[in-house]
Amino acid sequence: MSEPWVKMVTAQTPTNIAVIKYWGKRDETLILPVNDSISITLDPAHLCTTTTVAVSPSFVQDRMWLNGKEISLSGGRYQNCLREIRARACDIEDKERGIKISKKDWEKLHVHIASYNNFPTAAGLASSAAGFACLVFALAKLMNAKEDNSELSAIARQGSGSACRSLFGGFVKWNMGKVEDGSDSLAIQVVDEKHWHDLVIIIAVVSSREKETSSTTGMHETVETSLLLQHRAKEIVPKRIVQMEMSIKNRDFASFAHLTCADSNQFHAVCLDTCPPIFYMNDTSHRIISCVEKWNRSEGTPQVAYTFDAGPNAVLIAHNRKAAAQLLQKLLFYFPPNSDTQLNSYVLGDKSILKDAGIEDLKDVEALPPPSEIKDAARYKGDVSYFICTRPGRGPVLLSDESQALLSPETGLPK
Amino acid sequence: MSEPWVKMVTAQTPTNIAVIKYWGKRDETLILPVNDSISITLDPAHLCTTTTVAVSPSFVQDRMWLNGKEISLSGGRYQNCLREIRARACDIEDKERGIKISKKDWEKLHVHIASYNNFPTAAGLASSAAGFACLVFALAKLMNAKEDNSELSAIARQGSGSACRSLFGGFVKWNMGKVEDGSDSLAIQVVDEKHWHDLVIIIAVVSSREKETSSTTGMHETVETSLLLQHRAKEIVPKRIVQMEMSIKNRDFASFAHLTCADSNQFHAVCLDTCPPIFYMNDTSHRIISCVEKWNRSEGTPQVAYTFDAGPNAVLIAHNRKAAAQLLQKLLFYFPPNSDTQLNSYVLGDKSILKDAGIEDLKDVEALPPPSEIKDAARYKGDVSYFICTRPGRGPVLLSDESQALLSPETGLPK
Repeated sequence: MSEPWVKMVTAQTPTNIAVIKYWGKRDETLILPVNDSISITLDPAHLCTTTTVAVSPSFVQDRMWLNGKEISLSGGRYQNCLREIRARACDIEDKERGIKISKKDWEKLHVHIASYNNFPTAAGLASSAAGFACLVFALAKLMNAKEDNSELSAIARQGSGSACRSLFGGFVKWNMGKVEDGSDSLAIQVVDEKHWHDLVIIIAVVSSREKETSSTTGMHETVETSLLLQHRAKEIVPKRIVQMEMSIKNRDFASFAHLTCADSNQFHAVCLDTCPPIFYMNDTSHRIISCVEKWNRSEGTPQVAYTFDAGPNAVLIAHNRKAAAQLLQKLLFYFPPNSDTQLNSYVLGDKSILKDAGIEDLKDVEALPPPSEIKDAARYKGDVSYFICTRPGRGPVLLSDESQALLSPETGLPK
Repeated sequence: MSEPWVKMVTAQTPTNIAVIKYWGKRDETLILPVNDSISITLDPAHLCTTTTVAVSPSFVQDRMWLNGKEISLSGGRYQNCLREIRARACDIEDKERGIKISKKDWEKLHVHIASYNNFPTAAGLASSAAGFACLVFALAKLMNAKEDNSELSAIARQGSGSACRSLFGGFVKWNMGKVEDGSDSLAIQVVDEKHWHDLVIIIAVVSSREKETSSTTGMHETVETSLLLQHRAKEIVPKRIVQMEMSIKNRDFASFAHLTCADSNQFHAVCLDTCPPIFYMNDTSHRIISCVEKWNRSEGTPQVAYTFDAGPNAVLIAHNRKAAAQLLQKLLFYFPPNSDTQLNSYVLGDKSILKDAGIEDLKDVEALPPPSEIKDAARYKGDVSYFICTRPGRGPVLLSDESQALLSPETGLPK
């Protein structure tokens, strides 16, 4: 083969949302956490990263494009992932195209990486988790690394801690591990996405005027200054992990919701206990919590759980489609779109929930009655940017259809 | 003396703001706290309760008026205070007017009570602390109880926990005590108001759309559900109390500010760790914290401490007049009054701070430059209702001038 060839792999990896939170590292370089965490993987149909990785003898350096824009790979987090995967690369051979790369060649060959999120990167929707998981998964496949997804998760972890939980579908546990080199700090699947398939997830992307503290900076400051964090990590989380695994295995929604909400609130409590204090939730976040708490109490048994990451967005987990439709009615009552917004661009993802809720257009939103469990029926137009309806989803997959690749098979540059 | 006489006493008692917070009772009836707390007494010239108590053989029942409106005395908290003071009543004799009441008479005689706050009762400014302290102090003087202010504080405590700290000026410590009957759960003065007289206090009364959880309900729910509260009460607060007493005695503002801010934030953290979570601070509170934190950091050494009670209002303690004037400029930059508000009714209390800040009218507020330490120069008009400038102040006093009494000396009814 005289032409300089390009060998490519394209993968798709989901994002995830923790229900028992990761906050605080015991080792900042290896990204080893102070406690175990558990997450739900979100359906990649609505929230995922697609990454194409390519290798070619014609590439003169490692390069990466995120959402079409070239970014630097010089950061330690990218370098860690690239180094760890290269160390595990194996021989590959493509007889048809006459391509052969031996284990030792990988050290000299450069890669091109193109990554794309099917959701807004800056909206605080764990894009780095899906991103690093996808990078590591795709590179491992390209380089024919033999490691299983748990072993790969320990590499993705070194890119972004929560990325390790995006190597599996369903419910995933990140074991904090014990050994110093971090090799046992990896993700395992608790149950797959079919186990509890009637859950529905609604994400409220909340408008915010404040710049948020990055989670890296935030958790560093919490570890340094909070007097409550160690107590949480050592005394409280280990018990919650056991209870949460049991709730998930038994599909015990009442227990699941209680633990999810309590752990989200406690994570934000240790942020507040940080010096200077960190506020990720704002008044809109508080109002969403209040709406869910009042409804759950009026029903006697929880219908919806809420959890918030390092930002004001609410992730709401409904027991089933019926609860999700009712939830969406309540949310649209409190947070109607601005008058210049189309319903179609205000409720994204699985729009069948909107149909279940009996809402077809903005007139239906206007006509929604105030939830009976609330006396104050104030509406907060514009305080939510949009909603995404989704569900628990699968883990990483390879996309074999070359039309889905983000790099050109000829040039190895973004299409 | 044939006419039915009325014997009266009028007292004035300050409010106080905790710098190491009281949150959580170990005994709900006796109001015994889970940890010690420390407060600053605020100058009664700007925030105080005035209470007149009267006794007369013509009174047919105990009655009370608060800010001119009759209220019920049937609540346990009032009954506890009345019973405890009556049990300590002694003989009194007013030879001039021919009045003689013996110790045992007090059980049969009824009292009239009139109480007035020189600040809005519902604004979350600890009106119940000043109120119960004043009630107990005034009744003790009327009934010639021999107890000192610490002993009286243990009675005021049974009306409202934080009331016990309003029996002294300056800085006051509430010892949680050990014994079951609560007799050692009382307030003592750490230093008087002259010890650290250059402190200036600015209170931002924050507008809020949400109804707050009462502190009684809130702390009950925190004790029942927070997994962090006991750790705070047993492991963290005892050390902070020692450090805070030292900071105050040494007038060490850096240490004082650090402890004050950290403890306020931790109190709100345990509120957030409550199930359902309690939010007292709102976006405006967060913005005030952010303003102070950024300024303190830019100066290298703290200029101002902040603390928030069970509501969104900020209590800001400036190191000295210069820092207070700068603080007021920053606050008025971020939170200018609505255009229909007069400056005179927007900055209350000690208006000399406004003069120091070089602000004479609304045009000066409009012309304020954005604080140099902040990039985002957004202004939040209307988010603060008003400011009160004050300072550390004295403890309870008797008002001998009968014109200041709230009850008529003839009828024993409100003037």
